[in-house]
This record gives sequence, structure tokens and C-alpha cells, in this order.
Amino acid sequence: MISTPPPASLYPADVEELRLRTREFIRGTVIPAEPRPGQALNLTVRRELGEAAKAAGVYAPHVPREFGGQGLSLAHCSPVFQEAGYSPIGPAALNCMAPDEGNMHMLSLIGTPEQKRRFLVPLAAGDVSSCFAMTEPHPGAGSDPDALATTAVREGNHWVVTGHKRFTSGATFAGFAIVMARTAAEGADPAGATMFLVPMDSPGVRLGAPIHTMDKYLPGGHPHVHFDSVRVPENAVLGKAGLGFPHAQLRLGPARLTHCMRWLGLARRALDIALDRANTREIFGGHISQLGIAQEMIAASVIDIETSDAIISKCAVLLGIDAKAGSALSSVAKVHCSEAVYRVIDRAVQLCGGDGVSDGLPLAQYLNEVRPFRIYDGATETHKWAIARRASSARRRDVAAGEPFQGSARIDEGEQQ
Amino acid sequence: MISTPPPASLYPADVEELRLRTREFIRGTVIPAEPRPGQALNLTVRRELGEAAKAAGVYAPHVPREFGGQGLSLAHCSPVFQEAGYSPIGPAALNCMAPDEGNMHMLSLIGTPEQKRRFLVPLAAGDVSSCFAMTEPHPGAGSDPDALATTAVREGNHWVVTGHKRFTSGATFAGFAIVMARTAAEGADPAGATMFLVPMDSPGVRLGAPIHTMDKYLPGGHPHVHFDSVRVPENAVLGKAGLGFPHAQLRLGPARLTHCMRWLGLARRALDIALDRANTREIFGGHISQLGIAQEMIAASVIDIETSDAIISKCAVLLGIDAKAGSALSSVAKVHCSEAVYRVIDRAVQLCGGDGVSDGLPLAQYLNEVRPFRIYDGATETHKWAIARRASSARRRDVAAGEPFQGSARIDEGEQQ
Amino acid sequence: MISTPPPASLYPADVEELRLRTREFIRGTVIPAEPRPGQALNLTVRRELGEAAKAAGVYAPHVPREFGGQGLSLAHCSPVFQEAGYSPIGPAALNCMAPDEGNMHMLSLIGTPEQKRRFLVPLAAGDVSSCFAMTEPHPGAGSDPDALATTAVREGNHWVVTGHKRFTSGATFAGFAIVMARTAAEGADPAGATMFLVPMDSPGVRLGAPIHTMDKYLPGGHPHVHFDSVRVPENAVLGKAGLGFPHAQLRLGPARLTHCMRWLGLARRALDIALDRANTREIFGGHISQLGIAQEMIAASVIDIETSDAIISKCAVLLGIDAKAGSALSSVAKVHCSEAVYRVIDRAVQLCGGDGVSDGLPLAQYLNEVRPFRIYDGATETHKWAIARRASSARRRDVAAGEPFQGSARIDEGEQQ
Amino acid sequence: MISTPPPASLYPADVEELRLRTREFIRGTVIPAEPRPGQALNLTVRRELGEAAKAAGVYAPHVPREFGGQGLSLAHCSPVFQEAGYSPIGPAALNCMAPDEGNMHMLSLIGTPEQKRRFLVPLAAGDVSSCFAMTEPHPGAGSDPDALATTAVREGNHWVVTGHKRFTSGATFAGFAIVMARTAAEGADPAGATMFLVPMDSPGVRLGAPIHTMDKYLPGGHPHVHFDSVRVPENAVLGKAGLGFPHAQLRLGPARLTHCMRWLGLARRALDIALDRANTREIFGGHISQLGIAQEMIAASVIDIETSDAIISKCAVLLGIDAKAGSALSSVAKVHCSEAVYRVIDRAVQLCGGDGVSDGLPLAQYLNEVRPFRIYDGATETHKWAIARRASSARRRDVAAGEPFQGSARIDEGEQQ
Repeated sequence: MISTPPPASLYPADVEELRLRTREFIRGTVIPAEPRPGQALNLTVRRELGEAAKAAGVYAPHVPREFGGQGLSLAHCSPVFQEAGYSPIGPAALNCMAPDEGNMHMLSLIGTPEQKRRFLVPLAAGDVSSCFAMTEPHPGAGSDPDALATTAVREGNHWVVTGHKRFTSGATFAGFAIVMARTAAEGADPAGATMFLVPMDSPGVRLGAPIHTMDKYLPGGHPHVHFDSVRVPENAVLGKAGLGFPHAQLRLGPARLTHCMRWLGLARRALDIALDRANTREIFGGHISQLGIAQEMIAASVIDIETSDAIISKCAVLLGIDAKAGSALSSVAKVHCSEAVYRVIDRAVQLCGGDGVSDGLPLAQYLNEVRPFRIYDGATETHKWAIARRASSARRRDVAAGEPFQGSARIDEGEQQ
Repeated sequence: MISTPPPASLYPADVEELRLRTREFIRGTVIPAEPRPGQALNLTVRRELGEAAKAAGVYAPHVPREFGGQGLSLAHCSPVFQEAGYSPIGPAALNCMAPDEGNMHMLSLIGTPEQKRRFLVPLAAGDVSSCFAMTEPHPGAGSDPDALATTAVREGNHWVVTGHKRFTSGATFAGFAIVMARTAAEGADPAGATMFLVPMDSPGVRLGAPIHTMDKYLPGGHPHVHFDSVRVPENAVLGKAGLGFPHAQLRLGPARLTHCMRWLGLARRALDIALDRANTREIFGGHISQLGIAQEMIAASVIDIETSDAIISKCAVLLGIDAKAGSALSSVAKVHCSEAVYRVIDRAVQLCGGDGVSDGLPLAQYLNEVRPFRIYDGATETHKWAIARRASSARRRDVAAGEPFQGSARIDEGEQQ
Repeated sequence: MISTPPPASLYPADVEELRLRTREFIRGTVIPAEPRPGQALNLTVRRELGEAAKAAGVYAPHVPREFGGQGLSLAHCSPVFQEAGYSPIGPAALNCMAPDEGNMHMLSLIGTPEQKRRFLVPLAAGDVSSCFAMTEPHPGAGSDPDALATTAVREGNHWVVTGHKRFTSGATFAGFAIVMARTAAEGADPAGATMFLVPMDSPGVRLGAPIHTMDKYLPGGHPHVHFDSVRVPENAVLGKAGLGFPHAQLRLGPARLTHCMRWLGLARRALDIALDRANTREIFGGHISQLGIAQEMIAASVIDIETSDAIISKCAVLLGIDAKAGSALSSVAKVHCSEAVYRVIDRAVQLCGGDGVSDGLPLAQYLNEVRPFRIYDGATETHKWAIARRASSARRRDVAAGEPFQGSARIDEGEQQ
Repeated sequence: MISTPPPASLYPADVEELRLRTREFIRGTVIPAEPRPGQALNLTVRRELGEAAKAAGVYAPHVPREFGGQGLSLAHCSPVFQEAGYSPIGPAALNCMAPDEGNMHMLSLIGTPEQKRRFLVPLAAGDVSSCFAMTEPHPGAGSDPDALATTAVREGNHWVVTGHKRFTSGATFAGFAIVMARTAAEGADPAGATMFLVPMDSPGVRLGAPIHTMDKYLPGGHPHVHFDSVRVPENAVLGKAGLGFPHAQLRLGPARLTHCMRWLGLARRALDIALDRANTREIFGGHISQLGIAQEMIAASVIDIETSDAIISKCAVLLGIDAKAGSALSSVAKVHCSEAVYRVIDRAVQLCGGDGVSDGLPLAQYLNEVRPFRIYDGATETHKWAIARRASSARRRDVAAGEPFQGSARIDEGEQQ
């Protein structure tokens, strides 16, 4: 079956069983509750779907069982997350959506027991939501701690955080933020960036103007957030002070990949819509005689979906074996999947003709939902730049280590004088 | 200068002069009046811009001077329409936008003097607007008159039109519609489709539900329209009874091409926005070090724009010399330009990073404006199918006429027994 | 390390160990023996390399140990075959090249002990080579047994084979052929196609004209072969009479995939050559300032290679679990890999400028070697057609089984009357 | 008719008449004399075809009538050169092939009467051929005169040229070379590059090793050439001393464009071959049922051909009006056409299945003929880099001159503090 996630047998039986239950829940319960295209998911509906998901035993698939989830490892998340993503509101209903999902992952990896109790437990239960306050207004910081304009300064046994963030997805309704701030060297702590757990109702935290983007299903936008001398206690530091960027890397590779998994589910949905159209023989708003060209597009979409699925699986396994190699490969997976998912939905729009660009079908909105993914989490071009640099360095090292250099042409042979 | 329409010298001096005036008007007057992304143009603002355009001598560039326009022939429209399209509301301001522009073109070609006086004059002056009621709900008619569900029946010296149209762009605010209906043979008139000029306030004309699509700048959507036994006089027939489809062909080729011209202007705008970004060295939301990849994208966009410009020019000239060959080539131009324009804007979004998908820049909305153009006026795939069929037939005729057949391989030579 | 096969840890330790040994053998022994671009591998050199490979313990990696090979299962072949394919003559040196490799695979699956002794043992040892006589001159048979023009008729305890094949790769030097012929129903045997093991020195076997193609490294071309009333004994039937096509399917999926593995190795080689060029900063025959565009191409090639590797691995595992699903996925893998490999080599040519199209570097010849792979084993378009048909059927079955149909647009809601 | 150059009516009647005569000559006389794929044109055959072309009044279409040609201006060359290029040996037969054609163009523009008499007359008559000695071995000169390793030094009323060139197409059979050498400032002559007319039989001129490339139809390859203290008289300077690069620019834009014209003719040939295949319903070596995918490919090829034709025409006209703008646009035309032509032939190969990659059809060789064109005359990527830089500079100038800067996002509005 092409339009569904990989055959059970590639995964252990319990993962396959969870996938099938998730599939049933999404199709039977979540899809009927979807808002109309262009509308955001109502928060009450979201809460109700969450309760239903708990009852169905499909809630928080990636969260350890001790915190109320289904206990999937990253290497097994893909088939289940793809089922969740088959509905644009599925990940929200199952509490496995960005940025909460990545924040849970990081908290479970480096949070103290106290931090887990206070932040992870309610987050995993869906009682609060969270945000990740990293991006800053122009000129921004990228991954250079020195360029971070938000700072945190020690005062006694507190830290005082001051700065201005934007594109802070989920901030509007968040209970707490993980804030990246620049900190000075002190004692054993190096100068660098530090992550802080900051309740959004802390004095000095102020929501700024929202930033409206093309994606609409999830409410709250990506607002500016201001931190005006916000005081947090010492135990608000997540992980080690000064190691904020290395810690964030832990979050980044897997978060990139779970994004791919979810969006790939939506690509499958788009292909199913287009197949239903093509199977009833009305395509491009026109005649069956053009079916051959449709076949080319359908096949291209299947290939995009299957190769995305394969690179996600490989990368998820690799991240568990070799974090550095896995993180490097996650750039490849992210670029391929984000571009592939967009193409699949774009082709589905085309196959559905005039209806495809109207709100009679959800495809036009899907296109708007996934377009930013080619930019968020590192633009395609930024990743390509990094991929090329890594390939060049690796090869340079190989040659330095004795691999024969192969870049010389023989055409000038016998011409040297 | 790459990012502006073709150098003056490729066109006569008066055309170039009009282009420059149009350019100045768009940049000085229209752009400052643009609504925010996602908002529709206010009709009052549109009227004011129209008055200003008349004062500036740039109104209705394609309309013969006797009807108040600037008298451009189709072969000279491209540079001026590209300037107009540099703003998404420019064509509306200059009254050279679809569907009015195509309707004016057809009225001026086949309207009776009385029809011109009554319909073309106020349309060209911007006093009323119009729509073209052709597309029907599933299963639709395409170009097969027999499949047209809307009919017109003669009763005495009147016609009675009955039917249901949809995707009727501009109908909400239109003063009149050109309605395509199936008619029986009678006297010299063959059975076929016939076009009727129907005032929208005629008894029995009823606006149905709107169809919301991705494009937002122009108000009114693409509604359903019902014609419930609408009576119109004999002189409401536009052109000859029974020849509606051949007449519509007259409209189709040029209308396709003027669409390309306008959207190409918007592609130039998107490239300028991206160039301004790249020139201030913040691209993909990231670092200057990725500039090289940006150059690839900028160059690809320049190539898309220049080849679109060239094929539009060639096709516009050809339409004036050989309507049939020109119409065939307009399929090629339409596919190339609609895909190219989309790519140019898509790249511009990417070059602007997070801002590109927010409403802080207009690019995300531009993407939504032009996406339907890959489907409207014949989907890319439908045109490709037609292009391939024409190429195959032409070659078959050539071979039948004596051209040597070249499809046999010599590899079985000497193997025949 | 991007430019080498997947990190060891994704495979068992003994596979990784064999991969490393193969890598060393290819780079240390095979590459220095490569013929100049455009020249074919000398058969004596091939034999010597084979002996060296046996000595190095890397010969016939896919052949069961009992027949002198390294005993790799299909699921583990990919990293080793990629190392082999890093040289265009590597697979020949290691005796894991088409068509012998696929023939060995099929013989080991369905051969009788006697057939294995007589045909598989010498083939696995490199003492003879083989061919697969399937394709026929125009109009050809495709997969329809009734269209097969070559026939085999029973005469007593012999079969008489008569027909004309072409594109019979390897026939020139083959010791025996596996010949597909149409046979009538008889006893328990259905009418259909039957495979026969036919020694090439059998009376009536006659080599016809060679067919010269773009690929040059392996000698002998793809000749016509004539079977003029060739008598073979009953035990020449490979598998069951009448089941030739189902049997060939067993060969087809894996053979497609091992092709992908080998060519992917050559793509890695091409990328290494290009990286060496780019790392010494002379690209496109020009300046380092164009490096950015080079980075885009390098990254695109890495993505092509990594996604090819991932889909090959997934498909190889799936073929072992579910032959039908695996075979379907092998179409996806074949299309993606053959196109990706071609793109990678094409980009490498471009990155090396004038030298890239000269015989000073081997890249132009690599391009010619892999170009036919987009056609052999089913052209890209033929596979796409099959992929689309399977996707459509699967979805149709899903909908018939109760999945909600999603192809209806809501835009006509409230408009039905 | 899609598969033939633009309808006559876009060009003056005498041009159209010459096009038709050329067409007839190529199809009736040249194609029957084509060598088999992979073989070079025999020089005797070439001479005979040249005589026949003179007799048919189609010889040297671009050469002024006073020198024995047909007197076409660059703006009118395209339809005729496309007809010539329909055969890979057509341009050689008609004496309008590179590098001679570009050399004739430059000689007729800047040659002295004496130089025209001595070099242009026999060249235009086909009595001698020529080469253009510009490219040097690594690290090469690009367009930087200071990096030119070949030098010419004044000695009395002679120049002494010393240096080493490579990729000198046509040198093997050339009667004279135009040699680019670095010269010192002297009198009114600036330091820079200077072009010299050097008979190949001058003492000190020595052919070096040939460089074999993928293109095979034209004999002689692209050899190294050594100039060992070659003495030439003062009047061997072509144009002004020190102005070699600016002079070469005169040659470059038009030469790029005539390349595009010729290769576009070959793309039309390839499409015709594929159409003949598709029209006889055997495609991809398979079934008619895959016709739809073939239609997509055919349409894409028509679009590639028509847009190439359009941008060539536009650029040819522009070069006559504004040399600088025309030269800039020739980069766009060159990239688009070289890539488009390659795609067209690549698709034709695919459409013809196994025959496409064999030498039973000429398509595989066509692919090899045109592949270098994506690199020669400036690689695609080099031109893209130049195109992007020009676009960025033009936009920067526009903004500096008062165009509103459009790169600022409004999303941070109201957030500045």
C-alpha cells in the first residue's frame, strides 16, 4: 500500500500496533474535527481531542511511559508520527507537535528531576504548552553565541534575563519558555549561551507583536517576546551554563527529523486526495485523456514520499548510534523531505485543478502550512551550504590521510616542458 | 538593467514613453496605496487610482483611443503591462486586468456599434466592471458545446437563458456578464454555443455562493452565478449565434498572453525585493557566506524572467500575423510564464528567509496570487497535452508529405531474415 | 564521512569488515588497473584481478560461501557493492556484475543441485560467464508471454528452442545463456514462458550483429543472438516450465537493486573527483569566486547519494520480508537511483569544466556508462507508469474498504438544487 | 508546425526564402552524407558538400555577399542556422561553424582590407580553415590579461610570439590561428592582450597532443598548440594592440548566439526522431499505454525549443541595437539554450528506449556532441554567476538612484524601542 506508512514488518510488532491504533484514531476522531481551511484549531477542541487520545492510548507517543506517553524511541517514531501528521491538527491532538515535542525531548534528556517534575510532567500531560525563545530580530545570532543580544547576568542566586526574541512559535499560549541567552564565564562555566526555563507569567516577560505567517492551523502565531530584566532562580538553568548551543544541538537533529515525519504524513494525505480525484477521472479540472501526465505526477509523488520515508528512517537509527553523524545526516533529510513534501502537495493542487486552489479542498492551505518548513529549522540553502562544506572537508581529510587525489586531468600529459 | 522590462529600443519610441510614464505612475502612486498582504483592494481606492491614472495619461493602455484608452496593439502591450503588474493592484488601477481586459478586447473586435456604445464604453471608462460566465459545476463543459448545461432558447425576439456557472471571477461587482450558453440550430445559425451580453441586474440573475481561492488582492472572489430563465433581447447576442466557442478563441490567446505580461511584472517585483535583501547581505535569514547559493537562485530568476519576456513578445507578434499559429504558441507561452513566475516568487520567498513567509513582506501573498495561474486559463498539464498532440500531428503531416521518417534504428540491420 | 558508504555501525561487524577490505582492494588494486576512458577492460586483466580478489577474500561477495563467495545476504550487499562500484571495472573484478550476478542469484534460488553444480559453480568461480536472453527485436514481448516470438517445443525428452534475441548483454563471451521461450501447456505445466539453460556452444546457437551502446568498459556489447532449432535436454529447464515470468521476477527486483548499489558507488567516485577539483579551487575552469554555486551542486549530489543509499537499504530489507512489496518498491528505488546517479555524474562533469568533457578525466565516460541505466531494466517512464498505477489501485482498494473518499470539493455546497 | 523554425512571416521574405532553400539542401543533400554516429566527417566529403552548397546558393549564409556569402545580418541568422544545425555536419557543409564562423565575423568587423583579402576571403570560400588560440593550460587566464602566459614582444617591425595554448578547436587542419598574447604598453598602445593572425605553417608553430572530448563529428579535436618564438610582421596584429580582450568581446556575444542557433537545430532533429518513434507507438521500448508520460516529455521539449528560439531572436536584435545589453543578454540566452538543447536530446534518448542509447539511432552521439556546450563559451555556472552579479549591481544602482528599497520587513514594526 503506497499511500500509507511503511509496512509493519519493518518495525517491531508493538510499534506497528501503535501505528495502526494511531491511524484509526486520526481517521475516526481527529479528521472529523478539523477546522475549515484557513481556520485555526480551537483550543477547546484540542483539549477534547487530547483527552480522547489518552483514552485511545495514543497520546504523546514519543514521551517515556513514566511521564504518561507511549514510550517510542526516536528510531521508531516515524511510522506513528506520519499517521499523526496525516491530519494537520493530528500532532496537536496527540501532543507531539513542535515546539512542545522538541522541548519534551530535551527536558527528558538533560532536565534535573525537579525540572522534569515541574516542567516536563505538565507539558507531557498537555496541561501547559511551551515555546523555545531563540531567534532574535535582525541582525540575529545564528549559532554564534557572541552575536546573541539577549543576555543573562548573575545577581546573587538569581539570573536576570534581558532581551528581545521573535518568531517565538507558541509563545502566545505557552506556560513557560526555554530562553537562550548569552552568559559570561564564571567558575567552571565557560562564556557562551545558556538555556533558561522561564515561566511566561514571570514579571518582565511581555508578549510583543505577533508575526503572521502562511501557516494557519495552529493558533497563536510566532510573536515577538520581550524579556525585561526577568529574574529567575539558579535552578532555572537547563543543562549546563555556557553550553546552551551544544545542548540545543541535542534538540535540533531529532526535532528536524520529527518535523519531517509529521509533514510527510500530510504529504500522504495530499496524495490520497489527488488519487481520489484521479481515480474518479476528473483531473486538472479537465479530461481523462490527460491521465498520462497525471501518472507522471503521481509517480513522482510516490517517489518523493518513499525516499523521504527511507532517509528519515536511516537518520533516526543513525542518531541513536552516532549523534554527530546523525546530526549531519539530519541536514540531508531535512532538505530532501521539506522540498519533497512541498512538491507532493503542489502536485496534488495541480491534479485537482480549480478546486485545488479553492478552499473547497484543503490543499491550498496545506501548501501554505508546509511552505515555511523549507525555511524554518534552517533554510534549504543554509543546509546545502553546510552539507557541501562537510563533504568538502571530509574529502580533504581523506586525501590528507592518503586517499589518492583524483582531480588532475591527464590531458596535459606529455605537454609539460 | 535586468530587473526592469526590455530596453526601450526594442519598441517604438511612443510605446517606450508610455512604459516609462506607467512605471512612474505605478511606483509613485499605486505602490503607496497597496493594501497589506492578504487584504483586498478597496473599491473606493481603486476608483481614485483610476482617476489618477486617467490624469497621468496611462489609463486603459490596451483600449483604442476612441474609447478613452492609450491605443496599444497587443504586440506592444507587454512592456507596459509588465510595468502595471509590478504592483498586484496595478492592473486594476489601470483598468487592464482580467476579466475586464479580455472582455474589452472581444467587444472591440466583434461587438456591434450599439454593443460597443452600451457595454464597451462604460467598461473602458471604469464606470462598470464585467465578468465572463463560462465555467460550470462538475462535470463541466470544457470546449465541447454539447456538454454545456447552460442553455438559451429563443422565444419570439428574445432569448431565455437558464443555467448555473461557477468560478465566475468578478461577478460580485460586475455590471454585466458575457454568458456562454448552448443554442439550437436555427436558420443560418448552427447548433453550438452562443455568447450573450447579460446585465447583472436582469431579473433571474442571482449570485450564488462565493468560491474562495488563494488569490486575495482583488475583491469579490469567483462566485457561483445562477441564470433562472433570464430574458435578454436578440441584440444581446455577442458575435454570431452558434459561434460562441470560435469567438471565445479570439479572446483566449490574447487573454492568456496579457495574463503572462501582468504576472511577469509581479515576478520582477519579487526579484527586486529579493535583490534588495541580498544586496544588504542578509539572506535565507542567515549569513553572507551563503551568498553563492543565492547567486544561483538570482540567476535562475533572471533567466526565467528574460525567457518569459522573449516568448511573450514573440507570441504577441505572431498573434497579429497568424492567429492560429499564435494561439498554439500562446499555450507554450502560458505554461512557461506561469511556471517561471511561480518559481521566481518562490525563490524570492526563500531568499528572504523567515520574513519571506511572514506578512512583513508581501512575497507569501504574491505566491498565493500567482499559484492559481498555473491552473486558470488551462492547467499547465492540459496545455502540455495539447502542445504534445499538436507537435505529434504536425510531424505526422510532415512525414506524410514526404519528410523522411527518422524513427527506425539501424541496429537490426543485417539481422532481417 | 559523506563520500563513503554508510557508517559501519548501521551494519553488522562482519559486513563492515568485508566492506573495508573491499574498499582497500578496489583502491589499491583495481583502480590502478583501470583502462583509459572509452577502452574496454581486457579479459586477461579481468582474470588476474579476479584471482587477486579471491586471494584478498573479497571475491563474489553475494555468493553463498559453499560456492566460493562471501555469503552476503541481499540486505547486506549495498555497502560492499557500492565499494565495488567505486571503480567501473570493480564489479567485473569481483564477479558481482550484471548479468552474471543476477543469474547466480536465480540459480542459487531455483536451480536443481545438478544445475548448480554444472552452471552455478563455474560461474561463481569466474571460470565462465553467462547471459540472459530475454529481449527480442521489435515489436518485442515486454512481460506478455503470448507476445514472445521465441518458442520451445517438446520433442521426446528434449526441447527445441527457436528464436531471435537482441540486447543480450555479455553473450559474446558467455559460456551459457538463460533463454526465455514461449511453451505450450502440457500436463501440470501451464502455457507460458519457460527459462532454459543453454550452453552457447550448442549447435544452432549463433551470435548475430553486435549492438553498440554508450557504455564501453565491459567488452562484448549487447549482441543479437539466434537460436536455430537448438536442442536441449529436459533438465535444461530452469525452475518450472510455464513459470518463466514469475521466476524472472525473483531475479528482477534484486537485480535492479544491485544495479543501483554498483552505480551508486560510481556516483561516489564522481563526487570525489569533483570534490578534489573544488578543493583545489579551480572550478568551471574558473575562479574560486563561483564556489557558492559549486556548493549548491555538491550538496545536491550528497543529497542524491544519501537518499539513494537509504531507499536501497530499505528496499533490500523489504525484499527479504515481503517479496511483492519489495518488488514494487524496487521500481521506486530504481527510478530514484538511476536518475540520481546520472545527475551526480553530470554535476561532476560540470564542476570540472573543460577537463570534465575530455578524456583527461574519466567523468565523460562515466556519464556514458550510466546513461543507459535510466532505460535498461525498465525505463524511468515505464516504472513511473507502473508506480502510478499501483498507487491508484491501492488507494481505490482502500476507499472500497471503507476509507473516506476525499476527492470532493466543498465549493459547491449549498449550491445543489 | 512546431518542429521547424519560426514561421516565415516573422522574418523578411528573402530570409524566409533562404531558410527554405537551406532546409531543402540539408535534408536532400547533407543528411544522406552524414557519417555514422561516433565517426568524424571526412574532409573530402566536407569539401564536396561545400561545393554543392555554393551551387545551391546556401553557402556561408552569414558572410557579406562581397566575400561570397549570403549576406545575412546576425538578427536574421537564427532561422537559417537552425536549418543548418538540423544536421550535425550541416554547419561544416555550409561553412558557418565554429570557430571559423566567429573568426569570419571578427575579421569582417575589424580586419584591415589587406587582412580581409589574405585571411577572410579564403576562409569564407572554404579554401582554408582557422582556429582561435585563447585558452591556456592551468592555471589559465580567464579574462585577465595579466594572467596570460603567452606573450608577444616587439622586435623591430616584427612581433615574437611565445606560449602554449590548449583546447584549440580546429587547430589540426587550420591554415591560420588568431592568437591572443600579452603585450607591453608601447606608444599609444596600452599594456594588455593583443590578437595576432598567425599562419599555422609559420616556423615555431607546433601542434601538441590532441585533447579528446565527447564531441566527435568534427575532425581534429582540440589540441595543444605551442608557439616557440614565432615571428610575425606588424600587420599581423588584428585590431589594435592591447585591445585584444575588448575585441574578443565583439566576437563572443554573437559567437555564443550562433552556437545556440546551430544546436537548437539539432534539438529539433532529436525531437523529430522522438516524434517519429512516438507516432509509431513504440516508446521507452514499451507500450502505447505509457503515451501520457511521453506527451509530458514532448511538450517540455517543445517549450524548451520555443523559448530558446524566442530568447535567441530577442538577443540577436538587441546585439544590433545595444552591444553591451546584448552581450549581457547573450549570457542568459547561452545558459538557457545550452541546458534546453541538452534536455531535449536527453528526452529524445529516453523516448527511444534501448535504441536511444545504441548507435542504431544518432541520439546518443548527439547527447555527446552537445554536452560540452554547457561548458564551452563559459560554463552555465560561470554565466549564472555573472548574471546574478549584473542583476545585483543594476538593482543597487536603481536604489541608489532613488528607487524605493523594498527589502525591509514590516514584521518588526512597533517593536523598535
